[in-house]
Amino acid sequence: MKFVLSVPESLDPAAAAPLLCAGITTYAPLRKWGAGPGRTVAVVGLGGLGHMAVKIAHALGAEVTVLSQSLKKQEDGLRLGADHYFATSDPTTFERLAGTFDLVVNTVSAPIDVDAHLGLLAVDGTLVNVGAPAEPLSLNVFSLIGGRRSYAGSMIGGIATTQEMLDFCAEHGIGAEVEVIPADRINEAYERVLASDVRYRFVIDASTFA
Amino acid sequence: MKFVLSVPESLDPAAAAPLLCAGITTYAPLRKWGAGPGRTVAVVGLGGLGHMAVKIAHALGAEVTVLSQSLKKQEDGLRLGADHYFATSDPTTFERLAGTFDLVVNTVSAPIDVDAHLGLLAVDGTLVNVGAPAEPLSLNVFSLIGGRRSYAGSMIGGIATTQEMLDFCAEHGIGAEVEVIPADRINEAYERVLASDVRYRFVIDASTFA
Repeated sequence: MKFVLSVPESLDPAAAAPLLCAGITTYAPLRKWGAGPGRTVAVVGLGGLGHMAVKIAHALGAEVTVLSQSLKKQEDGLRLGADHYFATSDPTTFERLAGTFDLVVNTVSAPIDVDAHLGLLAVDGTLVNVGAPAEPLSLNVFSLIGGRRSYAGSMIGGIATTQEMLDFCAEHGIGAEVEVIPADRINEAYERVLASDVRYRFVIDASTFA
Repeated sequence: MKFVLSVPESLDPAAAAPLLCAGITTYAPLRKWGAGPGRTVAVVGLGGLGHMAVKIAHALGAEVTVLSQSLKKQEDGLRLGADHYFATSDPTTFERLAGTFDLVVNTVSAPIDVDAHLGLLAVDGTLVNVGAPAEPLSLNVFSLIGGRRSYAGSMIGGIATTQEMLDFCAEHGIGAEVEVIPADRINEAYERVLASDVRYRFVIDASTFA
């Protein structure tokens, strides 16, 4: 039974499916780095991973800020549980929020300006990447030394933590925001994923497989 | 009294002087990241900072490994409290020690291969820089994501932690290894510092100031 997970009955199976990837990938670092009451958490990027990070961080009791390229999804972000929403394309955002967060969860796999994001952290804060670009990033070590900051990475999570996450989501009525599609629309869905046109995960109805 | 430190009587003043810089700079991250019994700590570089890191990590009860460019100071390192000593110039060192350490304290201010050093960490391990090169370093984020590793920085320490460090050093009979010089040998000492010819800190005898 070490590799079996029990999905609580109260979770809708379609909304629960992405929890086994986007859910655990964001739950694990949020728990590891202590997201909870009295802690400020920023989520960079509001996609499949980011929207789960917002829901879970909010349910854990943290004060949640979304940092997205634009304000296009601001209404969604606030509905999902964010307390604040800022555009990273606005150059004043990084000045305004300097030294603010205990934890910044970066869900964007494209290269980021690591020094700028480390500058958002309070003393002893952590920036954690759950995605990664293929190319190496540049980092000024002084961005870490001032404020005793950390830059970390996290990859999905173990079975025990995944079960804990499923139980937590059931308790808080949390599922992924999904669009359920039949199997014959996979190609179209794939094109829409490439165009970032999904809020926030496609789920394929397995009963439609021929 | 918030900015006054009490140097315990049992500490030799000359050996205590560098504790207020090299001592606290290494004590703070060793405490913050939990160096102690059952934990494996590597110290990169055996200079003024490194030799204090070895003494303190050993006194905290950790298993201590020195990673130095060469084996030139191996005898010193083992005498100061290290359990193991490896040369980073030996290409097999990084393979042999992959995934080994809970904490790696990098005391070297010259640029390092960050990915290679992150590879030395066990799951949930931290590489912490207490010095920093002026130039940005390159980092592959996958080096952080695999094993949920962290890259951190730390700068000296606060007054409360400095007092804690002084008391800890007195309790464990720890001072810096020093060479006491009169004021008229400062220029010579400076040249020797540049040539890395000091084991491990010069202390100027203040009674010799004209």
